[in-house]
Amino acid sequence: MQKIKELISKITELDYQLMKIAGDKLDNLTKPQGSLGRLEELARLIVGITRKADPQFKNKVIFTLAADHGVIEEKVSAYPKEVTAQMVYNFLNGGAGINVLARHIGARVVVVDIGVALKTKDLKLKTQNFVDKKINYGTKNMAKGPAMTREEAIKSIETGIELFNDELANGVDIVGTGDMGIGNTTASSAITACITKKPIEEVTGRGTGIDDRGLERKIMVIKKSLEINNPNFTDSLDVLSKVGGFEIGGLAGIILAAAAGKVPVVIDGFISGAAALIAYNLEPKVKDYMIAAHCSVEKGHRIILQYLGLKPILDLDLRLGEGTGAALGISIVEAAIKILTQMASFKQAGVSKEIDK
Amino acid sequence: MQKIKELISKITELDYQLMKIAGDKLDNLTKPQGSLGRLEELARLIVGITRKADPQFKNKVIFTLAADHGVIEEKVSAYPKEVTAQMVYNFLNGGAGINVLARHIGARVVVVDIGVALKTKDLKLKTQNFVDKKINYGTKNMAKGPAMTREEAIKSIETGIELFNDELANGVDIVGTGDMGIGNTTASSAITACITKKPIEEVTGRGTGIDDRGLERKIMVIKKSLEINNPNFTDSLDVLSKVGGFEIGGLAGIILAAAAGKVPVVIDGFISGAAALIAYNLEPKVKDYMIAAHCSVEKGHRIILQYLGLKPILDLDLRLGEGTGAALGISIVEAAIKILTQMASFKQAGVSKEIDK
Repeated sequence: MQKIKELISKITELDYQLMKIAGDKLDNLTKPQGSLGRLEELARLIVGITRKADPQFKNKVIFTLAADHGVIEEKVSAYPKEVTAQMVYNFLNGGAGINVLARHIGARVVVVDIGVALKTKDLKLKTQNFVDKKINYGTKNMAKGPAMTREEAIKSIETGIELFNDELANGVDIVGTGDMGIGNTTASSAITACITKKPIEEVTGRGTGIDDRGLERKIMVIKKSLEINNPNFTDSLDVLSKVGGFEIGGLAGIILAAAAGKVPVVIDGFISGAAALIAYNLEPKVKDYMIAAHCSVEKGHRIILQYLGLKPILDLDLRLGEGTGAALGISIVEAAIKILTQMASFKQAGVSKEIDK
Repeated sequence: MQKIKELISKITELDYQLMKIAGDKLDNLTKPQGSLGRLEELARLIVGITRKADPQFKNKVIFTLAADHGVIEEKVSAYPKEVTAQMVYNFLNGGAGINVLARHIGARVVVVDIGVALKTKDLKLKTQNFVDKKINYGTKNMAKGPAMTREEAIKSIETGIELFNDELANGVDIVGTGDMGIGNTTASSAITACITKKPIEEVTGRGTGIDDRGLERKIMVIKKSLEINNPNFTDSLDVLSKVGGFEIGGLAGIILAAAAGKVPVVIDGFISGAAALIAYNLEPKVKDYMIAAHCSVEKGHRIILQYLGLKPILDLDLRLGEGTGAALGISIVEAAIKILTQMASFKQAGVSKEIDK
């Protein structure tokens, strides 16, 4: 826990003075003031986060954290739990959605086993983009007791911090968050209900695609899990340990570490959103470093975004996870900083300014 | 006019059979069915447009058509008319917003003088991306009479067709539309009011950024222009000649030619939207080939999108034009076809499918 506390103490306010300078620069580029809307907002934000007047995105990294969930015993998912491990292989073979979109935007995907039920270690995965940080072989069934111990919850966040800091050592300019874990929308809905205090029905969706009966069951399972465990919503670690998941804790750690490292972090969908809630409850200042990539179809996500006061960049009816929305979001953020750093000013281009100015 | 009629006769329905096959392929990729939302819709659409099961975007072209507007005599813009020509130079020097965003997505910008008030020809622009297709030195003041002759209106659309077909001869896989022309939101509002029959106030915005008094004046000028000219809304050429612009006609020609050539055309903002209205009124089938990149801040644009039944990909508070929104939209469409063509199927990746299927 000391490690987490130390890290959190390094999260500071944005550099508003540099943001003001960036705003003035944007106002003098060859376009009507403000006419690039959210691109201009994002460019200013990146300057405020990075403390660089001329930010560049050389290294774009998306973390896709995989873990299993004991709660799938309760039949809350349309897919069997084997899929989590199978998808890890798919990620490492480059055939998943996140691989395609990361290639499209020129980002690297770091795939992490932080709690997959299968032994991925023994399979000798030959790839430099795989990291084995398994905390346990999946969480326990939260409908019967805590998903993990408090120590494991701390370890999952600390693992996220380590993952980020390992990348930071090699240079990273922007990160995206991603997840893989059959059953993880159930955990994320439980976290969201607990922290935002919205009714379970309002924050629980169909995940990978369960039917009406499945959705009813899922809501009942979340209700039971919250009753049995009675997590203390003011204590993020209690929430995470009782109804969370290893990948969710890991992503919360990555988000906190990115903020401490002054690196913008692009939040993917619902599971990443639940991680953002955990991170925000540990240290509200972290919010300034978060960029919401998109608004997911999974209904609890909109509620998370409202709670955090984040306005998503995209709204494309996505609900895949893995970091796919984050990838597309990163590309828009990169476009924004290129506007700031590559456009000509009125003076440079010899273009007349507004008549009355 | 014969040229336009011949072209229009070549616009056919989408290939729904190939779209069905693409849909089945998407359903078997390693993701829950439909979980990539609009990316999946866009991928199917591109297959239906191109008749290719495995489309690739090697050549992405954005046309930025520049022209002046006589109506700026009425003080409807915040910028002087010299800016149109000045921005052409900015485009050719690579310093404008469209240059930055086109580079970001790997597209080529074709800059066209289709009616700039200044003689760009004499300035011996040294660039292969500039095309001189000047029809006249700006339109006439539509508040005093027709903006152009019917012959000029036909010529502007035919010019767009030529521009597209010249690119098609070298291979083009997707096109974006863009505009530059001080005063062109005034013309676009007049076209929109005329064709959608919405009140002028509802389709008229601040353009590059006029104040309240300017906006009031702009609305009065559009009202006067429509009264004096009384364009026949069922006759696109009448509307274009009386209250349109050369770049708007040119873009309508590009849109029609793209549809005839079975090439997807990504529509930028309000001015491109007005061109889309002209094209749609000439041949409604053209709509199937249009992809709305974004929804502009310029309020008439939302009304155009509703009229055409197009759902924009992005909503980023943009109002610059030039094709900037189209550039970002093209990148999302490209991501969509990469999903279709590069993702692994459940079978290929050895991933289990849904439990009940």
